[in-house]
Parts: sequence; C-alpha cells; structure tokens
Amino acid sequence: MDKWKRSARLVDMTRQLLAQPYRLIPLTTFAERYKSAKSSISEDLAIIHEVFSNEGSGELETVAGAAGGVRYIPRMNQERAREVLRALTEQLANPDRILPGGFLYLSDLLGDTVLLSDIGRIFATVFAGEQIDAIMTVETKGIPLAHAVASYLRAPVVIARYDYRVTEGSVVTVNTVSGSSRRMRQLSLSKRSLAEGSRVLIIDDFMKAGGTVQGMIDLLNEFQAEVVGVGVMVESPAEEKLVDSYVSLATITQVDIKQRKIQVELGNLFTQKGEWKHEKS
Amino acid sequence: MDKWKRSARLVDMTRQLLAQPYRLIPLTTFAERYKSAKSSISEDLAIIHEVFSNEGSGELETVAGAAGGVRYIPRMNQERAREVLRALTEQLANPDRILPGGFLYLSDLLGDTVLLSDIGRIFATVFAGEQIDAIMTVETKGIPLAHAVASYLRAPVVIARYDYRVTEGSVVTVNTVSGSSRRMRQLSLSKRSLAEGSRVLIIDDFMKAGGTVQGMIDLLNEFQAEVVGVGVMVESPAEEKLVDSYVSLATITQVDIKQRKIQVELGNLFTQKGEWKHEKS
Repeated sequence: MDKWKRSARLVDMTRQLLAQPYRLIPLTTFAERYKSAKSSISEDLAIIHEVFSNEGSGELETVAGAAGGVRYIPRMNQERAREVLRALTEQLANPDRILPGGFLYLSDLLGDTVLLSDIGRIFATVFAGEQIDAIMTVETKGIPLAHAVASYLRAPVVIARYDYRVTEGSVVTVNTVSGSSRRMRQLSLSKRSLAEGSRVLIIDDFMKAGGTVQGMIDLLNEFQAEVVGVGVMVESPAEEKLVDSYVSLATITQVDIKQRKIQVELGNLFTQKGEWKHEKS
Repeated sequence: MDKWKRSARLVDMTRQLLAQPYRLIPLTTFAERYKSAKSSISEDLAIIHEVFSNEGSGELETVAGAAGGVRYIPRMNQERAREVLRALTEQLANPDRILPGGFLYLSDLLGDTVLLSDIGRIFATVFAGEQIDAIMTVETKGIPLAHAVASYLRAPVVIARYDYRVTEGSVVTVNTVSGSSRRMRQLSLSKRSLAEGSRVLIIDDFMKAGGTVQGMIDLLNEFQAEVVGVGVMVESPAEEKLVDSYVSLATITQVDIKQRKIQVELGNLFTQKGEWKHEKS
C-alpha cells in the first residue's frame, strides 16, 4: 500500500489505539505502517489525544526514548460516570428485582454488555495510575464485571472458586465466613493462575459484610500478592464490615419486601478521595 | 463547541462507532454533534468504512430512510483469524497444561483479555448476519468467552447454572448427561433471563461429546427459543457427538500423558461452509 492520507491514518490509528488500551506502541510501528514521517505521526497523535481528552474518554500518554511510544489510557469523565450510575441506581431500584427472602435479581445487569462496558470503564478510571498485574474475582457473578474492567486495563483475570475443580490443577485454599449467614465456605485459587508478588485488583458484584472479599484477600496473602484495590458494583449495609477500603458504585440501603420498595443510593466512589482522578469541569 | 474540523470528527466518529457495534446511529445525531452538514458526515463515514474494510476489521452498514443511520459491524479477516488461531493452537499444545488424569489447564487462556477479544471478534464474524437476541453459556469457564463474543454482537449474555441459586428466582431445570462420564447433572436457567421465542447463540469453552451443549439446547427448547448456532473454543474427539452443528476454533486430537504431548489441530470453522463470510483475498 502507498503512503496513507492523513484522514485514513487518523481513523486507523484511532482504531488501533482503542483496541489496545495500556499497550505501548512505538512510533516507528505507525511510521512504517503508514509510510509516513514520525513528525506526521506525532501530529496525528496530538489530534487524537485532543479529541479523546476533550470528550473525557481517555488520553494518549507518550513515553520518550528508544523504548518509547504511545499508549492509550481509557477514562470516563465524572459527568458521564454520574449518568451511568444514575441509570444503574434506577434499574437497581426496580421492585421486580425482589426475590423470596429479600434477595435481589441482578443477573440481567451482569448480562448487559453495554452496562458492563460502562462500568468497566468507570473502574478503569478509578484505578488508573496503579500498576495492576491481575484482576481477581470469585465465581460466578463477578466474572463478567472483572472481565469488563480487565479489558480496559489490559490485565488478565484470575477466578477464585468455591469448589475444587480438577481442571484447575493444584490450588491454594482458604476458609471464608459469609458475614450474613456465618456459614463457612472454602475458596480456592489455582497455583498456576497468579505469580508470587503480583499486584492485584479485586472486583466483585456484591458486598455486604465483605466475607468473600476478605477470603480473596486471604488467598492473595498466600500468594504474597498485594491488593491494589477493591471495587464492587453494589454494596449493602452490614453491622460490621470486614473490609474497610473499597470502591462501590451503588449502595442498597433497604429492601422492603412488604412494601415492595428498594432504596438505592450512589456508592462511595466519588467520595473515595483522590481515586477519581479525572474530573472534567 | 464550534463546528468540528474533519480530522477531529473522524477520530471522534471512529471512537463512537467502535464503542457501539451493531447500534444504529442516525446521521442526524452526528450532524448535530459536529454542527456539520449531513453530506460532510456521509463523506467521513465513507472514509471510515474504507479504512475498516481495507483492514478487514469491519464495515459500516448504512440504513436508508427516516429510521435509518449507520451501524458498525465488527469483523476479522481470515488471514488475521488464522494468525490468532495459530497462536491459540500453539498455546494449547504446551505440555505444561497437562493435569493429573489427562485434564488440561485452560484457565490462563480464558483469563487472557487480549486473546478473548480476538476470539470474540472471530465468533462475531462467523455469526455476523444472524439475528441474535442473546448469547448463552454455562458457568464457569464459558462466561468470559460468551461476554467477549457478546461485546462484539451487542447482545446480552444468559448463564445456565449447575446448581440452583437463590439469587436466580424461579428457574427451568433439565437433566444433562456428561458424555464422557455418563454422570447426570441438572442444568438450570432463570425464567427471567430469557424472553420466549428468543434467537440464541450458544458459546462454550470446551466440548467433547456435547452433553453440556445439548443440555443448553434442551433448556432453550423449554423457553421456545431458537438456537442460532453453537461456538466452542476447543473440541475434543468423542465416539459419538450429541451435537452435529457447531463451530470450533481448535481440536485437541490427543493428550499423551506419558510422552507429555498434546496434539492440536485447527477446528472446523473454516470448513463450516458459508459461515466464514468475510474473506479478504
């Protein structure tokens, strides 16, 4: 192919950068691909960066030097995040979710790829700037959420399991206490799934007392891994939280089965000082 | 904001289209956003379409009329798909995957967000052109794969579960026979998760005789739902397959525990006539 026109180059570079968040792409790769001077490529990148950051949807980070290049960091501006969370809390407040026993049906939300993508971008914004080697969750409902976050942070996902499976090889197992029912459960993580000393972000769909999250933290300790942060989609009040530091998107404060009313508030993500780093005014 | 420059418009439209596969966006939405004439927008879309289709990474489909607009259809060209599958089969053939009993460790692949994204795009290409209302999988390992496909097809994911969970509400349950062990297991799907008459694509990580896939098909029958297709990442030979029509990416033909050798071949996806619709020559 001949030298690319600027218009075609802009479209193709945008496509490539968006498809590979956090991947450092050397400028030479672009220069060779488009048979263009590095100076033209730099001008293109400046245009892309300006559009992304004006829209609050991310930025391009340039790394100088021989091993340098450009990297796309996805973000969401606070205004858009508030819109997403307003829609989420509205959906959570729908009384049709109430199941016998006061449980809430959430599987529709966790199957909604558009919502998951928005939530993934929100958590990626909250935890941008942290070095994250892996994202951990627990089967089953946390998995879509963890993968949505991971796709924006370009990190692998590891899954803790309640039952030992033959397809996991040797595992490390800890005991967890479910805070609400005081029931003991075993939680396992395949030895192969995580390198020692990894920096890990924990993501889950729901947290009450935090027994499951604490179980994951205990597992990570067994791997000499470090917890970078904890993000949950929905939290619900508990007399005593086992985990103090976490980011939640929504809080379900009350489920009134008789009146068929669910009270939902915004989670703590905007009040977790310093973690919402990208504010667009 | 003032009228946008073409360069900024191209970057922003590319970003918006890529983020919303299969969503029909009216041209007026773009014209208003960029304060530009529809004719300019159409020219921009033509440039984007040309770049996407030259790279075999998708196309823009224009729908005429009052309810019309433009829609991004993600694809992967066959050359790139073959590269992805070559890398996948190489990874599958790594003897370190062999677990006691001849089982294979696959969780690293199913936690690899970059690989999953490629596989998602491949299945989205194979099943492009089908009307798909939902993507179904079974817990646990099929979930990341199903979500990867769903994100390119903009469809919700529903998850069949082996055990009844209180958070699923009323469920429909069927019996499945695991082809290899002849063991009976119950498979359930929440009644709320799927509307009657839906057109459903089944995605799973591994298939031998196809007992689990058959269980999902039985469940779908209970919902008067239609199976649009079946896609599995890895298949392995079985004396008798319960499912005849499926698309596989890789076939594990032999696992030799003593010699520590895994034989892997390409799956049937390129031979499933007519299903690989987007060939770039």
